[in-house]
Amino acid sequence: MSQKHVFISAAQAMTEEFKGRTNHWLCRPEIANCKDLQICRATLPPGEGHDFHTHPELEEVLYVLEGQLEQWVEKEKKILNPGELAVIPAGVVHASFNPTDKDVMFLAILSPAAAKGPFAVDVSGEEPWKSLRKK
Amino acid sequence: MSQKHVFISAAQAMTEEFKGRTNHWLCRPEIANCKDLQICRATLPPGEGHDFHTHPELEEVLYVLEGQLEQWVEKEKKILNPGELAVIPAGVVHASFNPTDKDVMFLAILSPAAAKGPFAVDVSGEEPWKSLRKK
Repeated sequence: MSQKHVFISAAQAMTEEFKGRTNHWLCRPEIANCKDLQICRATLPPGEGHDFHTHPELEEVLYVLEGQLEQWVEKEKKILNPGELAVIPAGVVHASFNPTDKDVMFLAILSPAAAKGPFAVDVSGEEPWKSLRKK
Repeated sequence: MSQKHVFISAAQAMTEEFKGRTNHWLCRPEIANCKDLQICRATLPPGEGHDFHTHPELEEVLYVLEGQLEQWVEKEKKILNPGELAVIPAGVVHASFNPTDKDVMFLAILSPAAAKGPFAVDVSGEEPWKSLRKK
């Protein structure tokens, strides 16, 4: 168990490598006294994404900080610019991609801070999600 | 009741004037299907602040987007730079000020999305909070 912090910057964050970039978990029970909020600053390089999935127990908001995010919520797609967000209720299928030639950075804000079951369930191999983006 | 949105930008946000600036509520039950998360993008002009208060039922994270925020959590103070945050459990006294000569913009992220009692309780007239910043 790491130390619990009130003020958190990259130095206190839990880091996670993803496709050559570093994601920063800035709020999580391991590093802060939180029970309702978990926050990750995530980066997607060009062409990469988080394919269709759900968080069965977690409500999520994605808030774009830099770049452009191709965001899907069920069958609805929108390019989100900095300052724009998507609201995803628990259990709702969603996906995020970077269709541009620059990195996109965003906050993934989830609640509550811990799930009893799996954090995420991958549905990217199932229809209609498997074929949705190719249409 | 406004329309509920999945994707939200400034145009869909609920706005609130504060000290000559506009705060944008980007996630709230009035505009989104959220029950666990509420998010406000707030701006403090130079010299202004949100004096010492609590949210009796809401956990809060403040994430700085631009500028520098003088953040208090109980008697602890830190200047937060962009990308840094403070984690404030429900009921814990805190305050935010802008001691610089430029605007500071930050996200206030609260959970759950609604409180049964008061959203906030002002304690700025009570000791030790009343005298804390003058020391």
